[in-house]
Amino acid sequence: MMKIWKIPSILLVLTSIVTSHPDHLFEYEKLSQYVDSQQEQYVQTLRDWVAVESDSSDVLRRPDCHRMMNMTAEKLRVMGGMVDLVDIGIQELPDGKTVALPKVVTAQFGSDQRKQTVCVYGHVDVQPAKLEDGWATDPYNLTDINGNLYGRGASDNKAPVLAWIHTVEAYQALNIELPVNVKFVIEGMEETGSNGLDAMITAQRDTFFSDVDYIIISDCGWLSRRPALTYGTRGNCYFFAEVEGPKQDLHSGVYGGTVIEPMTDLIGILDTLISPSGQILIPGIREAVAPLSDQEWKMYQDIEFDIDNFKSKIGVSQLMYNNKVDLLAHRWRYPTVTIHGIDGAFSGPGTKTVIPAKVIAKFSIRQVPDMDPAMVKKQVTDYLNSVFAKRKSPNKLKVTMVIGAKPWLAETKHPLYEAGKAAVKRVFNVEPDLIREGGTIPIAKTFEDVTGKSIIMLPIGGFDDGLHSQNEKMSRYNYIEGTKLFIAYLHEVAHLKKD
Amino acid sequence: MMKIWKIPSILLVLTSIVTSHPDHLFEYEKLSQYVDSQQEQYVQTLRDWVAVESDSSDVLRRPDCHRMMNMTAEKLRVMGGMVDLVDIGIQELPDGKTVALPKVVTAQFGSDQRKQTVCVYGHVDVQPAKLEDGWATDPYNLTDINGNLYGRGASDNKAPVLAWIHTVEAYQALNIELPVNVKFVIEGMEETGSNGLDAMITAQRDTFFSDVDYIIISDCGWLSRRPALTYGTRGNCYFFAEVEGPKQDLHSGVYGGTVIEPMTDLIGILDTLISPSGQILIPGIREAVAPLSDQEWKMYQDIEFDIDNFKSKIGVSQLMYNNKVDLLAHRWRYPTVTIHGIDGAFSGPGTKTVIPAKVIAKFSIRQVPDMDPAMVKKQVTDYLNSVFAKRKSPNKLKVTMVIGAKPWLAETKHPLYEAGKAAVKRVFNVEPDLIREGGTIPIAKTFEDVTGKSIIMLPIGGFDDGLHSQNEKMSRYNYIEGTKLFIAYLHEVAHLKKD
Repeated sequence: MMKIWKIPSILLVLTSIVTSHPDHLFEYEKLSQYVDSQQEQYVQTLRDWVAVESDSSDVLRRPDCHRMMNMTAEKLRVMGGMVDLVDIGIQELPDGKTVALPKVVTAQFGSDQRKQTVCVYGHVDVQPAKLEDGWATDPYNLTDINGNLYGRGASDNKAPVLAWIHTVEAYQALNIELPVNVKFVIEGMEETGSNGLDAMITAQRDTFFSDVDYIIISDCGWLSRRPALTYGTRGNCYFFAEVEGPKQDLHSGVYGGTVIEPMTDLIGILDTLISPSGQILIPGIREAVAPLSDQEWKMYQDIEFDIDNFKSKIGVSQLMYNNKVDLLAHRWRYPTVTIHGIDGAFSGPGTKTVIPAKVIAKFSIRQVPDMDPAMVKKQVTDYLNSVFAKRKSPNKLKVTMVIGAKPWLAETKHPLYEAGKAAVKRVFNVEPDLIREGGTIPIAKTFEDVTGKSIIMLPIGGFDDGLHSQNEKMSRYNYIEGTKLFIAYLHEVAHLKKD
Repeated sequence: MMKIWKIPSILLVLTSIVTSHPDHLFEYEKLSQYVDSQQEQYVQTLRDWVAVESDSSDVLRRPDCHRMMNMTAEKLRVMGGMVDLVDIGIQELPDGKTVALPKVVTAQFGSDQRKQTVCVYGHVDVQPAKLEDGWATDPYNLTDINGNLYGRGASDNKAPVLAWIHTVEAYQALNIELPVNVKFVIEGMEETGSNGLDAMITAQRDTFFSDVDYIIISDCGWLSRRPALTYGTRGNCYFFAEVEGPKQDLHSGVYGGTVIEPMTDLIGILDTLISPSGQILIPGIREAVAPLSDQEWKMYQDIEFDIDNFKSKIGVSQLMYNNKVDLLAHRWRYPTVTIHGIDGAFSGPGTKTVIPAKVIAKFSIRQVPDMDPAMVKKQVTDYLNSVFAKRKSPNKLKVTMVIGAKPWLAETKHPLYEAGKAAVKRVFNVEPDLIREGGTIPIAKTFEDVTGKSIIMLPIGGFDDGLHSQNEKMSRYNYIEGTKLFIAYLHEVAHLKKD
């Protein structure tokens, strides 16, 4: 259910507390100047972090993920934080083997009970990237081109994590007392569904998380050049649909016409997921989606969003919808199905006349209120099995859901968001956009459900950072001004009434 | 049209000439013993050849292809052949760039005008292979397991080419005069459609090919453990269907729901190629196929073919057809569509939440009489364009046919085939199966059309050699006994009446 329209009056009272506190103006200026002076050092640290290919989706890169967690812990330890590397167990692979999950880094700076305690969540694992995917530069060698820092994970999520660390470091360097206690939870499995983190949060609910007042996540981006606060994310259910036929690949000349080919079966069932106009055809999915309210429609209508600019940015002549509200709504608050690719078929350049023996489609369905991943898993599995059964194929279909992350939605009138508006105003001198995120930050919902704490998403990534795609980047501007935003935000949070 | 049922009476007369010539019996025994004595040397040479990754479909491997042609030429030169490395020009790539084609090796041993002259055709390029595709051994390190020699290209077509070379070598080693003049045409582009060879054959029709009486091709395999003669092959039209959308890959969370995804479009059009029961849905394709005659039905009915064995060999519980005639007919003389895979989409292990920007499906259609590749190209392109147009997608579809190889069919009562039967009888003491080949030897049709010479396909590969798939192998038995078959065959051909 949408909750954003029921604002308890107490929150509106709290809001007024946030608005002014000139006592911190001076410190902000000093801190801001310090951040500017550290720019080259910050960029170098980001370069060191991007150089680690911490791709959590590829088990062969798991040693790099472990190394990345150790580097993160060490960085926080050197700053005097109380740091733990929390073992969160093993990951079971589709083939039944197991591999150790990257440990979760927790850290704490300050434990003054009179202060607010914020917990910053971030991740230091990345999506896969290869030069031959079409990168202009080596994705693991941070490269500065006209003030943009190109590299896998630069924006998602290494620079924001570093910006938060640098925020604490800046206070330390200038011997200015932190206005709030700051905790960190940094994980290394976000890109594949934050395996193991749910259990860790649950296990530490009454210990590490017991004194946390607010959770801050900076794992997203702005909608335009205007800074934004994010109040919702879509979840994601990621599926493998495997069709297995002959015991090995076959020559398409020698065997073509005698075997029922797994690839034909797979294409056939994939084609039943979505209509050409983007409508999801899996029964029950659309029915579960919360209807768009008139107020919501109006809110979207008021957001500044340049469709032509969006089109030209992604290089398409026509979008799925040609008006702003439909476009934003389908980006943020409706589910979508994306077919990412097929494992096991011929995917190289040139020609190969093979009948692939076993092919695995990878597709995912973005989740929104009031969808439930457990239900979606059943809907998709039942549907594909029934579609496949109609083909009367002797091949074997196996549908598995490997990620099942819930959506998350916050109240935009919450004091945390008022604090965010004030911080944005201080650093950028504008009002932020209030936006949702089409992508998934799987853990937001867990934090909310398990700890019962309020969450804000405070992005510093640019609207054109190319997350998950070729030539991901973080601009120096967003990296540095973003650090200042975090510094300003801690001041604002310090003035919220302690629960 | 099927031509195999109209046997001119002169051929039946010629047949009787072939049947007995005891004068050569002695030499055969000596030659056969010599071949046995050379087994380890032959295996080592095959190992050296398999070690060269002469994958003609991958332009990055082109230097290996050139090296392979040079090695082949050198081997023949050392034996005293008149050898040429014929430049056949350049290859235009889909992106407009060009790359040199591997040269064609021609060689000649003997020029006695009183003798028959045979021209052996073979190729030394291979299909792609990677250990991670599921090979039990390094595909480019020939590995002997229980008398089977595993390696890419071992059976297709390096061992048969070497067996022909060793045939000539054996005569030389024993100072026995070759009963026929032997020419070689060895190419390095067979696996991708023999680019450039057609033009080379045409250009040398009145020079190199002018004195050739018969063309022999050993680029195929037996149907069972019984030796076979092959009288037909399917052609192949290989297509790329490219759908291009955004200018780069996009994050499926951030952009999913706003863009019309190229992968969805591609899956949609691929699903219109074939019905679940294997029926080709492209208008005009099935109508072009020559009907199955009663005589042909009976011929298929008489072939020994164990369906259960075939099923268990490829590891499926059910085939596309459950009777021998349908099965052989759809393997040999009906077209099939195989979707090989998709380039540009996510094909790795793990999960990646990407919207691929440009995806290229690779599929091919096996060709049979009376299909015409030029017509098929138009039928497929028109059909896919019309299917795509109905989707009203802003993405761009580009259909290209990168291989267009015609089918080939011979007369089974031709003296060349009678000679083949006699040779098989001498070496293996059985009657050969008369079979067709579902795969494609693109050049057979060209040889026939350009030179007007008769062609025989004389396979020595095993029925379970795994061409084009993982764990391709050539057995020592087939390699060695196959060499003897070639030796015996030259004797038989020597006794055919010279045209």
